[in-house]
Amino acid sequence: MNPKAFRAAGDPGHPTQPPEDTTRRRSRFRQVVDLTHALAEDCPTFFGERQLRLEPIASLAEDGFNDAVWHIGEHTGTHLDAPYHFSADGAGPAEIPPCQLVVPLAVIDVRAGAAADPDYQLTPGDIAEWEKAFGPLPDMCCVAMNSGWSPRFGSESFRNPGDDGLLHFPGFHVDAAHMLMSDRNVVGIAVDTLSLDPGCSPDFAVHRAWLPSGRWGIEAIALLDAVPPKGATMVVGVPKVVGASGAPARVFALV
Amino acid sequence: MNPKAFRAAGDPGHPTQPPEDTTRRRSRFRQVVDLTHALAEDCPTFFGERQLRLEPIASLAEDGFNDAVWHIGEHTGTHLDAPYHFSADGAGPAEIPPCQLVVPLAVIDVRAGAAADPDYQLTPGDIAEWEKAFGPLPDMCCVAMNSGWSPRFGSESFRNPGDDGLLHFPGFHVDAAHMLMSDRNVVGIAVDTLSLDPGCSPDFAVHRAWLPSGRWGIEAIALLDAVPPKGATMVVGVPKVVGASGAPARVFALV
Repeated sequence: MNPKAFRAAGDPGHPTQPPEDTTRRRSRFRQVVDLTHALAEDCPTFFGERQLRLEPIASLAEDGFNDAVWHIGEHTGTHLDAPYHFSADGAGPAEIPPCQLVVPLAVIDVRAGAAADPDYQLTPGDIAEWEKAFGPLPDMCCVAMNSGWSPRFGSESFRNPGDDGLLHFPGFHVDAAHMLMSDRNVVGIAVDTLSLDPGCSPDFAVHRAWLPSGRWGIEAIALLDAVPPKGATMVVGVPKVVGASGAPARVFALV
Repeated sequence: MNPKAFRAAGDPGHPTQPPEDTTRRRSRFRQVVDLTHALAEDCPTFFGERQLRLEPIASLAEDGFNDAVWHIGEHTGTHLDAPYHFSADGAGPAEIPPCQLVVPLAVIDVRAGAAADPDYQLTPGDIAEWEKAFGPLPDMCCVAMNSGWSPRFGSESFRNPGDDGLLHFPGFHVDAAHMLMSDRNVVGIAVDTLSLDPGCSPDFAVHRAWLPSGRWGIEAIALLDAVPPKGATMVVGVPKVVGASGAPARVFALV
């Protein structure tokens, strides 16, 4: 457990006023990449049921403007898992400090492994290989798994249910989560699939280890192919809903 | 009308794949400022009625995790007004190009005027004064009105209803909107009040002029005091909900 990350994210007494939040580094960019899937009513969900319905409440023709109410599961589309999702008193989207929502992005490519085995789990060895190629993981970063799953988003192969009644898509191995929690200062992990754990996980081991530590996750992130393994800044534009355990988010990479 | 801004935001045929979007400038920052109000069920709304309800659907004790469904008006809290809000075929949050959601931020201080008159309207003269002090408005920027209204968010004085049955808070003058549309390349405007128009507006003139032009607005932005008049980059983290006319957003300033 890295106390720097934990104290900032998980301490409900963390001062949120003033909201200024120094990142302690100088970042620059010249390109914006949208890592977010379009969120339509029929988008794929973990449990296979629709989690979004737009209810029109005003129309341009009759009222002079368009307006709607959303009925939406807070874990739908490209979305944030907040610590509170798997803990009694962890931070929600409104309590995570802003400096932990604008962070360096490290992308680990496991496309070959996932192509060979849809149950592929990102291992400590994959992290070690990334660090061998690109150096130590940056301070306060997000580590994202690129399994090549993003283009499946429009089809049932995103969930990929098997004849065995289980889902089959890649995720983090719990040993990788523990490695990132114990030896590095990582504030978030992201997956391009429907769950931080692999689809066939019997116990949500990664969720149960990672989120209660005060760190966040992002599920169903899109288009990691378009960003470099190292050097991008990720912005997690998550609505600041009080009491939520997660939220559909707009995720950008500044490259 | 500046065709650069219009074509990119309003053209439904705008290619969204690949999602890479060059901003044509080099930006840098070292601080993150959260310009977003916490969004609770009792937050103030234009019509004075609650627009958010969280419905718990799972709990840690019974299910092993917390989860909820939101029933939420798409124009609640710090939120985006998309062109489609006031037009038949304008862009929604999912169609606005990413490079128009990460833009230079210009903050115009009208606190003195608003303190003297809650019906204050930001005028072309205020814009001219800003440009005299800071130079031409940056290309593809957002122009934000700082009326000093942000600290009122927790109380009824944010809506500020009068004995005349009208709301009394500041907004843009329609002449200012036309000035920004005709002579400059501005993609968005933002207000720290409940409406782009002043509260007592009889006709939503700014909404009707600005949004159908393919440009966006942000309402109830927070804490503009914490960012400089010029030099910050604004990130509009708006959920990518298809068919929406707006959306609760996470808005950051990178300073």
